[in-house]
Amino acid sequence: MDCSLAPIPDYGVYPDTPGLTQAAPQAGSIALTWADGYVSEFHYIWLRDSCPCPACVNAVTREQTFEIFAHPDNFAIDDVSLTPSGALSMVWNHESHRSLYHPGWLRAHCYSEAARCARRLQPRAWGQDMQHRLPVFRFAEIMDSDTVLLHWLRTLRDDGVAVLRETPLEKGLLRQLAQRISFLRRTNFGDIFDVQSDPDANSNAFTSLRLPLHCDLPTRELQPGFQFLHCLENRASGGDSILVDGFRVARSLQDEKPAAFRLLSTRPVEFRNRDRHYDYRCKMPMIRLDEEGNLREIRLANFLRGPLDLPANQIESFYHAYREFYQMFSEDRFLVRFRLQPGDIETFDNGRVMHARDAFDPSTGERLLQGCYVDRDEVQSRIRILEREEVRSWL
Amino acid sequence: MDCSLAPIPDYGVYPDTPGLTQAAPQAGSIALTWADGYVSEFHYIWLRDSCPCPACVNAVTREQTFEIFAHPDNFAIDDVSLTPSGALSMVWNHESHRSLYHPGWLRAHCYSEAARCARRLQPRAWGQDMQHRLPVFRFAEIMDSDTVLLHWLRTLRDDGVAVLRETPLEKGLLRQLAQRISFLRRTNFGDIFDVQSDPDANSNAFTSLRLPLHCDLPTRELQPGFQFLHCLENRASGGDSILVDGFRVARSLQDEKPAAFRLLSTRPVEFRNRDRHYDYRCKMPMIRLDEEGNLREIRLANFLRGPLDLPANQIESFYHAYREFYQMFSEDRFLVRFRLQPGDIETFDNGRVMHARDAFDPSTGERLLQGCYVDRDEVQSRIRILEREEVRSWL
Repeated sequence: MDCSLAPIPDYGVYPDTPGLTQAAPQAGSIALTWADGYVSEFHYIWLRDSCPCPACVNAVTREQTFEIFAHPDNFAIDDVSLTPSGALSMVWNHESHRSLYHPGWLRAHCYSEAARCARRLQPRAWGQDMQHRLPVFRFAEIMDSDTVLLHWLRTLRDDGVAVLRETPLEKGLLRQLAQRISFLRRTNFGDIFDVQSDPDANSNAFTSLRLPLHCDLPTRELQPGFQFLHCLENRASGGDSILVDGFRVARSLQDEKPAAFRLLSTRPVEFRNRDRHYDYRCKMPMIRLDEEGNLREIRLANFLRGPLDLPANQIESFYHAYREFYQMFSEDRFLVRFRLQPGDIETFDNGRVMHARDAFDPSTGERLLQGCYVDRDEVQSRIRILEREEVRSWL
Repeated sequence: MDCSLAPIPDYGVYPDTPGLTQAAPQAGSIALTWADGYVSEFHYIWLRDSCPCPACVNAVTREQTFEIFAHPDNFAIDDVSLTPSGALSMVWNHESHRSLYHPGWLRAHCYSEAARCARRLQPRAWGQDMQHRLPVFRFAEIMDSDTVLLHWLRTLRDDGVAVLRETPLEKGLLRQLAQRISFLRRTNFGDIFDVQSDPDANSNAFTSLRLPLHCDLPTRELQPGFQFLHCLENRASGGDSILVDGFRVARSLQDEKPAAFRLLSTRPVEFRNRDRHYDYRCKMPMIRLDEEGNLREIRLANFLRGPLDLPANQIESFYHAYREFYQMFSEDRFLVRFRLQPGDIETFDNGRVMHARDAFDPSTGERLLQGCYVDRDEVQSRIRILEREEVRSWL
């Protein structure tokens, strides 16, 4: 299908689709029929708004210059047709403006219920079963191959966890790994932080204390999206690692204790991270949903939680709900336990997969991890760019 | 009041309060009466959870080690009293654990409706009236005086806008300014970006095009909190600056077009920022509210908006609501218009105050701004640290 006449309004690459067979104008919209029998409806205002021509979209920046609201909203057409090359052509009643739409782009943006549903990413929830099938990647392959890199990043996106093996035992190595994606998330703990027992610690993470299941930095408006922990030494007794899929626990809570789920997903809790130089606080629900009711993220870190600040008549019921949620996290059915070996990098979705470590005894040997964060936006952008290349390689 | 016996569980400094006169146990809670007649109720579970003693809170990290859910939730007391130094003392029925609470800390954490309401920060909304009273600060004073720095940051927090004057005409100066707060927000555009006409622009910002009212980077999960624009040269004709308080517009929309407000605050819209190397997308409502219905942020940038992806029967009503909101932004009653002079830094809340510029003619002279972002967390943390010092200086 040669749609060279239909510009693409972005850098997307749209693979071949079944092709358009019919374009039938209706009142205020157009019904498109595809060669596979599928039907899409697009409203005139949506189509006019989406015109990709160089008068409407800046050809260099690929950003829109046309402003839909500079025109009255009675959009109508003088002509509609399918071009010989397969594009949809529409001529608008206003100024006889002509718009050409690439069929692959149209199909990718269909907003039928079925199409919207198919586009929604579904995290793959897991429990104890993950213990024996933790996704493993070789560090060198991620560094050398875009295919392996894409596989790892999709695993992080969908499973929320993967272990990288056979990494060099070099401090600062995480920077190279992060640069394969984009850049590190900067925090007051630095770009890369040492996780080891420190007598002047400004976080329980930097002691030898047991750390209960938590995510890092729920104290910030944006929790870091992904966390990488590089194990350099682990000779101390204790200090084993635990991971739990917080999305799986939240869905179990919703099924088994719906009242608790409702409270935890609607009542905000403040988390605090304070030291001599910083005082970060963030107040949000522990279970965050998006506008469509999908799980967005979990915010859990009992040792960073500030005093509850809720109406007095909700204090006891909130504690009750929180107790139900918190105790679920220690149930065997959800728990994955393992011991990091020097050369391992534990990589996980910090807003979904809660992590913990047992207390360790620093007198029995060294334990040194290095950690860093890469935000969700950076991982998702990198996946899309790698997928552009993947699609191009098929064409 | 000497409360040295009552440790503070954080680095907060709590100024003198009226003092406690009575502690009356009730069923499951305690009623505290203060010297000014004010009454606070605290639940036992809340108090036990908030015990600041070194066995419950790590004395170095100031993070909690006590876990409330490791205990059954039938908290009760054997004894309650006010100590001679003014602290609240409670002895728990479990293990005779004794907790001491600083009265200033208790008063600051009271969760009565009145106390919660008084603690809520209220942005000061503005319209056209701001034109002749834009808050102005001298750059050198912000760099030299913590008092002026705090005044500027509170202005940014509450008014969302301030202009800094008499700044050196040096590229990279914004880094010094950001370091007075904390650190810069890194993005794919760099730490500091040049805003000038570029033939290979990857954003309409880097052309000479008119930019309609917008915020920067609604394409990210976390929009940058604050934006600083440093004017180095402005000799081109055109290019004047416009600012509008998006919170004021949103509140007007809520009053005047409640149905539009409801749609815009609940239906997500995707924003996209794509170039050859990045593909960022973020789908959130244009008007974001917190769990208590307060305005959290505005996301508006028509030229970055992706095609609407809503159920088909909502497309036309959403465009209608969006048109009402969008057109409000060009009403004179909301508009502040000015021209940046070399040496000015325009500083504003990127999630609240929408900014725009007129088209300019690069053939008539140079126009060069530099921009950067500092996130909300960093500004708020810095305000709290400066306020700690301020309170200490009173004591």
